[in-house]
Amino acid sequence: MFQEMKPKMNQIDLSGYLSTKRALINQTIDDVLEQSSDAKRIVAAMRYSLMAGGKRLRPILCIASAEAVGGYVEDVLNTACAIEMIHTYSLIHDDLPAMDNDHLRRGKPTCHVAFDEPTAILAGDALLTLAFEILSSPVVNDEVHASKWLTVINTIATAAGYKGMIEGQMRDMDAEGGRLLDQDALAAMHTLKTGALIKASVATGAVLGGGDTDDIRRLKVYARNIGLAFQVTDDILNVEGDPDIMGKEVGTDQIRKKCTYPAILGMKKSKQLARQLVNNALQVLDYFDNKSDPLRAIANYVITRKR
Amino acid sequence: MFQEMKPKMNQIDLSGYLSTKRALINQTIDDVLEQSSDAKRIVAAMRYSLMAGGKRLRPILCIASAEAVGGYVEDVLNTACAIEMIHTYSLIHDDLPAMDNDHLRRGKPTCHVAFDEPTAILAGDALLTLAFEILSSPVVNDEVHASKWLTVINTIATAAGYKGMIEGQMRDMDAEGGRLLDQDALAAMHTLKTGALIKASVATGAVLGGGDTDDIRRLKVYARNIGLAFQVTDDILNVEGDPDIMGKEVGTDQIRKKCTYPAILGMKKSKQLARQLVNNALQVLDYFDNKSDPLRAIANYVITRKR
Repeated sequence: MFQEMKPKMNQIDLSGYLSTKRALINQTIDDVLEQSSDAKRIVAAMRYSLMAGGKRLRPILCIASAEAVGGYVEDVLNTACAIEMIHTYSLIHDDLPAMDNDHLRRGKPTCHVAFDEPTAILAGDALLTLAFEILSSPVVNDEVHASKWLTVINTIATAAGYKGMIEGQMRDMDAEGGRLLDQDALAAMHTLKTGALIKASVATGAVLGGGDTDDIRRLKVYARNIGLAFQVTDDILNVEGDPDIMGKEVGTDQIRKKCTYPAILGMKKSKQLARQLVNNALQVLDYFDNKSDPLRAIANYVITRKR
Repeated sequence: MFQEMKPKMNQIDLSGYLSTKRALINQTIDDVLEQSSDAKRIVAAMRYSLMAGGKRLRPILCIASAEAVGGYVEDVLNTACAIEMIHTYSLIHDDLPAMDNDHLRRGKPTCHVAFDEPTAILAGDALLTLAFEILSSPVVNDEVHASKWLTVINTIATAAGYKGMIEGQMRDMDAEGGRLLDQDALAAMHTLKTGALIKASVATGAVLGGGDTDDIRRLKVYARNIGLAFQVTDDILNVEGDPDIMGKEVGTDQIRKKCTYPAILGMKKSKQLARQLVNNALQVLDYFDNKSDPLRAIANYVITRKR
């Protein structure tokens, strides 16, 4: 099936695409925060974690999804940044001593180490809240499209909340300490913890880019598959990755006795699964023209990345 | 000034008004959460803190404000409940060991004591997120008024975020440990920490109830004054209150060396200030008819309450 897709797939300069979009996203985030002084400790902490060098996968997916249905980056740039803020808040809270107790992320001290625990809790809270402030801002939206903006806010809030990302984190914590889940339960956990927000990124991009119901439905299938492929690859990299390239230690999942794909399927089957998921994602893109080439390239990047 | 208002002020049965509204609010919150099973630990924690017996001041103010401008409780009930969820999230996070490390609230174990710390962090996150899910829900709003709903979401997000409530909590933590603020700095801290969300409650009630710009502006003045009066009274009750009626210990501010109104002004001037603030609030209600009687009664309740 993957072979059949190839003739339709144009080679795009993915690394150029990613760095252009990252620069746009970083500039937009910077503009939003610049309205407040960094002299305020809370803003300094928010900026610290937002600018710690993430891949910006979710906002880039949001933009690429809008483009795939004929929309433009300006249609979704603020939404993309709001989603990155929600992602960043979830990392800050996950890293807290009471949760994963991580001291390093992307080679830098985590927020509660660089600042302190109360500031990290509040910086996470503030980023989550700021996302909804941006999404409802009169600068971002306009009266004509108000109803569409409400759909976007509802999609993101539902994905980030206790029916999505937060329930996923509950299950993830519950599964630590050696209890092996079966493959379905592991997939369900990841689909909630990271999949829900990735799907919301793609879905809101498609909505704001002007996609129709079929477009949105298909792009959600794409998102579900690459979201899970991303997690399988994360698990693989934690075994086989190069710590120097990744900017973090490997082998930590085994030490923590985390339930991972390599742990329950073995390495070979985990790699086959990741490839299969990406092929599923590429298959639905068959219905789209070459404006979806970035989405194709990102799907492949998700499982071939080294960090 | 307060004397002049009296002839316009009808006696309403405040305790009946409050208990009717509380029942409506509790039922609505229950309906929202019922969609998810309490078997889920996260939902159980959210419900535990939401149903721990709060005064429901903010949602009742939202409803009373809508009524004051000629609107109805149905116009704002969901918004009122969303605001209560944000208030409850802020209490859960404030109570955490890394923050105020409180073990009791309203006579019951705090969320992280009744459950555990990670669950409490996530329950707070989930309540904050759920508020925005409700505010953007297609059940709550409709296409015609979509633009108004965006205004409501933006008002609440801005009040709850790093320009409002969260900055207030940062300043409050900063002021603990004996450093006395001057009266302006103390008022600024409270205006951010609790005043911003109280003002948003009243403002969104007025917007959704159909108030005009002047109504909204005046009701914000009302809100600012009773918000601060509420805090001054909290400080007074922490010295003079009856622990049995209040369901919590008194004298704790002095032990923690918190900067309070009695500490910087003395008790007599603190009481005068509370009365003056309520008089300011009552004064702007002069522009409204007897549909604002509940707001009048609430203003008096704020400083005469025993808990």
